[in-house]
Amino acid sequence: MRIALLQTAGDPANEPAANLDRLAEAAKRAKAGGADLLVAPEMFLTGYAIGRESAEQKAEPADGVSARRAAEIAQANGIALAYGYPERGEDGSVYNAAILIDAGGRRLLDYRKAHLFAALDRSMFAAGTGSYETARLGPFTVGLLICYDVEFPEAVRALALAGADLILVPTANMQPYQPVSHLLVPARAYENGIYVAYANRCGREAELDYYGLSSVAGPAGGNLVMAGDGEELIFADIEIGEVGVARTVNTHLKDRRPEAYRALAQVPG
Amino acid sequence: MRIALLQTAGDPANEPAANLDRLAEAAKRAKAGGADLLVAPEMFLTGYAIGRESAEQKAEPADGVSARRAAEIAQANGIALAYGYPERGEDGSVYNAAILIDAGGRRLLDYRKAHLFAALDRSMFAAGTGSYETARLGPFTVGLLICYDVEFPEAVRALALAGADLILVPTANMQPYQPVSHLLVPARAYENGIYVAYANRCGREAELDYYGLSSVAGPAGGNLVMAGDGEELIFADIEIGEVGVARTVNTHLKDRRPEAYRALAQVPG
Repeated sequence: MRIALLQTAGDPANEPAANLDRLAEAAKRAKAGGADLLVAPEMFLTGYAIGRESAEQKAEPADGVSARRAAEIAQANGIALAYGYPERGEDGSVYNAAILIDAGGRRLLDYRKAHLFAALDRSMFAAGTGSYETARLGPFTVGLLICYDVEFPEAVRALALAGADLILVPTANMQPYQPVSHLLVPARAYENGIYVAYANRCGREAELDYYGLSSVAGPAGGNLVMAGDGEELIFADIEIGEVGVARTVNTHLKDRRPEAYRALAQVPG
Repeated sequence: MRIALLQTAGDPANEPAANLDRLAEAAKRAKAGGADLLVAPEMFLTGYAIGRESAEQKAEPADGVSARRAAEIAQANGIALAYGYPERGEDGSVYNAAILIDAGGRRLLDYRKAHLFAALDRSMFAAGTGSYETARLGPFTVGLLICYDVEFPEAVRALALAGADLILVPTANMQPYQPVSHLLVPARAYENGIYVAYANRCGREAELDYYGLSSVAGPAGGNLVMAGDGEELIFADIEIGEVGVARTVNTHLKDRRPEAYRALAQVPG
């Protein structure tokens, strides 16, 4: 399976319609490059550091106007899509969410960020509960996480235990957190015997300096591909067979000692 | 605090007395180099791939003859010591263990490897239960893990939650597991805001080709120092202040969502 990552600053005016145009253009290029799936950054639809009022205004339900337009883009180009957006939940809350749509335009997954990052996230969003749903995409069992989530080995492990062998991570990560791309993302892939696709923003937004370095890490240890710090569409070929091979070498998942991990799930009283 | 790591193949005949001589010699050199603590590899005392019969024969209690000699070496040189050895438990079982002795010759910690690695470990050792005890060494709160343990983010997290800001890891890691040194060890340090000292064997033993690459990883992301693939004594300066600084930048420990991690502690039924 070929996967494409769109590293972008998005529309300068943060207009969802303009960003959907960008998504359509990238989907076309990704498909022409042989990709089966295109992953775009966190809060791709609206920009990220947009403040509470804007997030409230621009939030849409998971089956909203923009999601329907994205489904049309997926179907028209015959390519699966994942991207981040502000979701208006049934409860009225706004979540930092990501969606996965298949090449037929069907919505496969909708995920709400569980680990909110600093005041930036907390001023705009309610936290997701940490759902670990998966969906089938070609030969892969796919899960979604968003940015800061992937830095927590617990979240990635939970998704891997739920069966995910490919985790898509729309992100908006900034200076000075480059070790996330260089260390944590490939570590997550290696320690779980999975692929992790990490699609970052680039450029500046408010005081944030997004560092780019979008990457796909594989189960054998290390990044298969990594972007620079500017606008870029990068590709990686991932093989489900590599997951099986890696898991005969690295048997972490079956050598876990869950009875020794109770402290990890303990809520401080 | 200055920490020294002894990367060694140990005595060719796997004689504990000869390995203790090597420890004494390394302790002297480490102290001369300004180190406060010397960490030696997994099963340093007896060799690692020695088979069940040898492990049974050479196993000693945590306060056995060799531990007393090591305590004398620590006291004589005024340096704390950590190393691996086969422990004869009160229950008669043999454990893959590691010990930490302070510069006054007092035994601070004894740890039994909880994650046994393949038939190699399982043919010789009973598994530890995963204790996360810590002890004070200078300004640091220190914990022990052994080799494969550190590859499990759960084990390192549990120790960090128990207060450890420096984890000593006697190890005996071999081809083709180099991503453990390049990715997992520095990832553990970064994601927990701690130091991790990883002291590996080198050379060949039975069919094993130990890759060396002993390292000390810091909380800011990355290895501070890394050995080559031969016999070596390496040094690193670690600062408790860096832990505090890193934890204001990386707030992973306080941003965890334990209520979302229940699957991690679930024992398959």
